[in-house]
Amino acid sequence: MTAAFDFSNQFRDDAPAAAAMWKGFPKHNFVGGHNAPESISTDDLVAAASRVLSREASTLAMYSGHSGPQGYLPLREYLSAKLKRQAGIECSTDEILMTSGSLQAIDLVNKTLLSAGDTIVVEQSNYGGCLTRWSKLKVNMVAVQVDEHGMCMTDLARVLERLKADGIQPKFIYTIPTVQNPTASILPLDRRHEMLRLAEAYDVPIFEDECYSDLIWAGERPPALFALDKTGRVIFTGSFSKSIAPALRVGYLVARWPFLSRALASKSDAGSGLIEQMILSEYCPQHFDAHVIKLNKLLEAKLDVLIESLNENFGTSVEFTRPPGGIFLWLRLPDAVDTSKLTEIAATQGIAINPGVEWSKDHPNGNRHIRVCYASGSADDIRAGITALADVCHTEFGVPVRSANRER
Amino acid sequence: MTAAFDFSNQFRDDAPAAAAMWKGFPKHNFVGGHNAPESISTDDLVAAASRVLSREASTLAMYSGHSGPQGYLPLREYLSAKLKRQAGIECSTDEILMTSGSLQAIDLVNKTLLSAGDTIVVEQSNYGGCLTRWSKLKVNMVAVQVDEHGMCMTDLARVLERLKADGIQPKFIYTIPTVQNPTASILPLDRRHEMLRLAEAYDVPIFEDECYSDLIWAGERPPALFALDKTGRVIFTGSFSKSIAPALRVGYLVARWPFLSRALASKSDAGSGLIEQMILSEYCPQHFDAHVIKLNKLLEAKLDVLIESLNENFGTSVEFTRPPGGIFLWLRLPDAVDTSKLTEIAATQGIAINPGVEWSKDHPNGNRHIRVCYASGSADDIRAGITALADVCHTEFGVPVRSANRER
Repeated sequence: MTAAFDFSNQFRDDAPAAAAMWKGFPKHNFVGGHNAPESISTDDLVAAASRVLSREASTLAMYSGHSGPQGYLPLREYLSAKLKRQAGIECSTDEILMTSGSLQAIDLVNKTLLSAGDTIVVEQSNYGGCLTRWSKLKVNMVAVQVDEHGMCMTDLARVLERLKADGIQPKFIYTIPTVQNPTASILPLDRRHEMLRLAEAYDVPIFEDECYSDLIWAGERPPALFALDKTGRVIFTGSFSKSIAPALRVGYLVARWPFLSRALASKSDAGSGLIEQMILSEYCPQHFDAHVIKLNKLLEAKLDVLIESLNENFGTSVEFTRPPGGIFLWLRLPDAVDTSKLTEIAATQGIAINPGVEWSKDHPNGNRHIRVCYASGSADDIRAGITALADVCHTEFGVPVRSANRER
Repeated sequence: MTAAFDFSNQFRDDAPAAAAMWKGFPKHNFVGGHNAPESISTDDLVAAASRVLSREASTLAMYSGHSGPQGYLPLREYLSAKLKRQAGIECSTDEILMTSGSLQAIDLVNKTLLSAGDTIVVEQSNYGGCLTRWSKLKVNMVAVQVDEHGMCMTDLARVLERLKADGIQPKFIYTIPTVQNPTASILPLDRRHEMLRLAEAYDVPIFEDECYSDLIWAGERPPALFALDKTGRVIFTGSFSKSIAPALRVGYLVARWPFLSRALASKSDAGSGLIEQMILSEYCPQHFDAHVIKLNKLLEAKLDVLIESLNENFGTSVEFTRPPGGIFLWLRLPDAVDTSKLTEIAATQGIAINPGVEWSKDHPNGNRHIRVCYASGSADDIRAGITALADVCHTEFGVPVRSANRER
């Protein structure tokens, strides 16, 4: 090239800053919803792919195959039965829209409902990917307190009443009731009923994100809010990213037709990838439940390693509630530690963690927390990473003072 | 449910109207970029899927596998070589971003560059999916005339000069130079050089959409504008939808890093589906070129059937240029025929066609044209569909008067 064209005057004012070139995963990787590579059942996936492609590859010549824009019909049939069995949800295949990950489901809900200046009600500790999206959309997020059992209903009642007094009608309550992100709490049944009662009283829809709800090893999965609702106000999203594999990009949106038909109209991508849907549909009826049992054992064992390593390296300098499921731990560090600064310095040492502020909305101690994802690394990786993190934290903030039986 | 929650007050003002429930493909289906089901090489795809999944399924546990957010590295390596060989493009794997169909590439370019009120320069006959997107974004589209060789350079010069006189700097020139949609023209080399000269003179980027450029059976594929450009102003998109299968949803964006890094930053979907990319990467090096030769023979044979059937049924009532490639024919009907009305009435008879106005921007005869996609149906389907269309057209508009040796 004789000269590089200067695009800098052409970009939209609000286009995000340039992405950095990807240089591989960090050495100690505690971020992202990655899963355990050793959990993948290669032979079963190969067999499923061979069977379904041998039978139906020619249908790939048509956009969305023979199933139309809502996605591969046999997979929607499987999901309709699975959601009934495991979450108590009654929905037909027409009430399920397959999406490119549950992120696309979230984007479709946002596109259908939210304009700049709208108000939504969210959990105070929350999924960073959503908080970023809503900030970009200039949506007002009103935070509700969470505790070790999820969203606090007295605080939700307070928030809804205050908004009503201010003449503000929120567009929805967003909640991750089952294995909350990042706290990993499970909202008990009585709070679910109370949330629905409040939503009805204040006439607010609920957006229920259940992408982690297959990953539970302690206690039961309660019925979904969608299942308990009698008014059609709940919009539900789920995913195969956490239960099978994130690189598949297969999620789903479940809603009654008056809403789903509007979300579908905004899905202008000419369909989500069909091959993954076909493979999942062939794989899941035979293997899903057994796979998830195996996966949860793996994940719980990794959690044990993480907790052991935290106790060894941080001792009483960290506080957390042992998660009943999921792939992450939400850690409270002492007041001396600015976790945004910790994240920044740790990154220079090849340690990736999520700083609490990015996973919080008006959380009084957001900047004392970090989110640690533990699903993808080996036990040795986890131990090495936590040791390295403790070293950085000690050097920078003086805590932990002493750990692993050695003065730092 | 005791009552269906009323979402009607919750929707965004500009959310699209509800989608209709999908009821299967129309009987006579001449719309959509579907391909020929008989072209799909099932055995080769099954073998590719088995090989690559046997080797790498466990990498699906990580978002984007081991390749990072730009997509599966071996497929980008294949594309880098393919684009060099077939389009003259020199680009590294870092200058390729895999996308969920070229539609996502288009959305990323739009998100990165376009705000409401911006101006772009487009071909007067154009891809409906883009026109719809730009209308929704409230972008001003300024049309340039096209003839049987694609965009007319004298008219482009006139348009650019007029915009300059008006103090308007267009964000880009959008062109489908190779197998233009819907005219199927191929822009000759001299016009490509002239377009680049004009783009440079007026300092405008070019957005080159080459999603049909593998499908050519008459003449050669000229070098891409991206290949001829020496200034880094061309943004390029391509796809496997038309050459392999649309339900795969695998497209790509090619651009120099100053642009690509910004588009990548807007790709907030946690990666495009990896399995399709893996399968393509395994399949293409061995099979792509032979597959496309076979596919083009199939498509040209279907075009022959379509033209024969049009001649039989419409006689001199239709005008068209025989396409050198692609999957559609752009038909001119007599002035008596309002093709939007024809489309509407044909739909009631199970005949789906694209009305010219949806594929036109300020085209003086847009409403006398239709786009007829012929790749997916059998020869018998094509004949039956064209006969049915001629019947509807005759009944409604009196043309064709006489055809297939019978008075209508």
